[in-house]
Amino acid sequence: MKRRPPTSLIFRFALISLVLLGSTQLANAATTDPLPSWNEGKSKQSIIAFVTAVTKVGSANFVPPAERIATFDNDGCLWSEQPMYFQLFFAIDRVKALAPQHPEWKNKEPFASLLKGDVKSALAGGEKAILEIIMATHAGMTSEEFEATVKDWLATAKHPVTKKPYTQMVYQPMLEVLAYLRANDFKTFIVSGGGIEFMRPWTEKVYGIPPEQVVGSSVKTKFEMRDGKPAIVRLPELNFMDDKAGKPVGISSHIGRRPIASFGNSDGDLQMLQWTTAGEGKRFALYVHHTDAEREWAYDRKSHIGKLDKGLDEAKKEGWTVVDMKRDWKVIYPFEER
Amino acid sequence: MKRRPPTSLIFRFALISLVLLGSTQLANAATTDPLPSWNEGKSKQSIIAFVTAVTKVGSANFVPPAERIATFDNDGCLWSEQPMYFQLFFAIDRVKALAPQHPEWKNKEPFASLLKGDVKSALAGGEKAILEIIMATHAGMTSEEFEATVKDWLATAKHPVTKKPYTQMVYQPMLEVLAYLRANDFKTFIVSGGGIEFMRPWTEKVYGIPPEQVVGSSVKTKFEMRDGKPAIVRLPELNFMDDKAGKPVGISSHIGRRPIASFGNSDGDLQMLQWTTAGEGKRFALYVHHTDAEREWAYDRKSHIGKLDKGLDEAKKEGWTVVDMKRDWKVIYPFEER
Repeated sequence: MKRRPPTSLIFRFALISLVLLGSTQLANAATTDPLPSWNEGKSKQSIIAFVTAVTKVGSANFVPPAERIATFDNDGCLWSEQPMYFQLFFAIDRVKALAPQHPEWKNKEPFASLLKGDVKSALAGGEKAILEIIMATHAGMTSEEFEATVKDWLATAKHPVTKKPYTQMVYQPMLEVLAYLRANDFKTFIVSGGGIEFMRPWTEKVYGIPPEQVVGSSVKTKFEMRDGKPAIVRLPELNFMDDKAGKPVGISSHIGRRPIASFGNSDGDLQMLQWTTAGEGKRFALYVHHTDAEREWAYDRKSHIGKLDKGLDEAKKEGWTVVDMKRDWKVIYPFEER
Repeated sequence: MKRRPPTSLIFRFALISLVLLGSTQLANAATTDPLPSWNEGKSKQSIIAFVTAVTKVGSANFVPPAERIATFDNDGCLWSEQPMYFQLFFAIDRVKALAPQHPEWKNKEPFASLLKGDVKSALAGGEKAILEIIMATHAGMTSEEFEATVKDWLATAKHPVTKKPYTQMVYQPMLEVLAYLRANDFKTFIVSGGGIEFMRPWTEKVYGIPPEQVVGSSVKTKFEMRDGKPAIVRLPELNFMDDKAGKPVGISSHIGRRPIASFGNSDGDLQMLQWTTAGEGKRFALYVHHTDAEREWAYDRKSHIGKLDKGLDEAKKEGWTVVDMKRDWKVIYPFEER
């Protein structure tokens, strides 16, 4: 009679047990809904069908894990953007905080109007006014000092309508999409027109997206010695606008490969979705359409913020997924009861 | 007598078996040398001591996996850079390939000298000449076309001295460091003065570093429709020089957090090492010192390529690890016999 060595016996037990356990887990996975905040329907089905297709080993649509890159716009796609971009609330609060050091702002637009509480007049100068506010409040300090101001602000600031912290105004259904993709070995990236260093301090905690997977607009920076210590200093000069045709450029620069899935909500995301879907193999593009005036905001073709006009036409033409927030989402924010 | 359900029994077997298998594996890990191509000595010890310190749960030096960022220079740190940067061999071969489309190059420096095979005269124009060669050969095409030219070139080009493909002239001991760090949950990044799109096509295969973890110098690009298809087009304009003080800026832009370990070989890496070691907690900086004129090249303070002068002084002052290639490395390249 042959005697088996004990390790071989253990190994056999382990193998058999794992195979059996494995099938139980697979059975569980199949019955657990990865997108519980989504109502059944075309939108939800399209997401699951895509992920199933590209992850099925041996299928013609299979994509190796390393190439499973998914990119997400932030404002209006992962969190709200009304009544104005949240970063602008931050900038305005910074103007107020910095005003004592800038007596000249009392007589200089757009700062004068802002300090009087007249946001509308301050922003009447359009993009130029916004850029002036951003530069005055986002530059001249080190990256680490800026990070601290963002964290401090988020810890206490409340949204004027919901009275909730801004980082709670994220879309529960999209958090589920992020988690679902990552569970299927996707790397999830943010590709936003918002400031890259405005997002990085909180995206890991809120979305599970680490700083190195955040692409955004930026100011120029320089490395210098400050009091004998190395520092990255933020300069009052635009470096890169990660919006519209800038998004594929930002993706190319930061990620270096083409996403196979992209998620947006405005015409600012159109080129990113075009770039994504023009690649070979199975691709996925999704627009969040803001249709829910009661639970969130309803806006599209004529909105100043998050305008979705050309994109809506192209989505229809190309067969992209268009999420109807009102119909498709059971809840909007995580703090709502389901 | 109680009857156990079969799944519980299976689970017990699996658990016990896994624990037993697990301890065997742990025992193996402790006796397996993670850096077999390194001779015993201070350099090897310093790497292992650092990794052990920051990964030991509960220790004061513990760093959570998400913050374990390590950055590596490429030329002269992960692969050779003599008798000139390998990217320059690529550019020169491109000049030759493109010459029929550029009859004007026959009378225009630095191209005229290059086409006559006189590399020395061509490069006499210094950085300006090099930049002209790079722009003429790296721009005007789409990112995907450029990627294809890099891959095609690497598939056939041979180094003039070793007659080996360039991607085999990587340092075996450094490949082991990369793998060792990743096995300890580090994210490894390249931060190189070389072209970002020149490196990305092969770093995953050669170093296990995916494109999104490669930071480098770049030309400006734009998104446009070419024949009705979206394309990223490379423009003949420098976007970013990822060298010297540019390295911390590139790290800040691409990674968004400070590395805890950095590896370089020249004064071009000095600011990256300063930026890394000035952070809080345990930090690691390493210079590869080219001391092996027989198996590789020996150069430092007076070299035109990969000059290591200030950095050598600072390393001594700060107690950074300085690898003596000749003494510390059993082999240089993977194709050598150990």
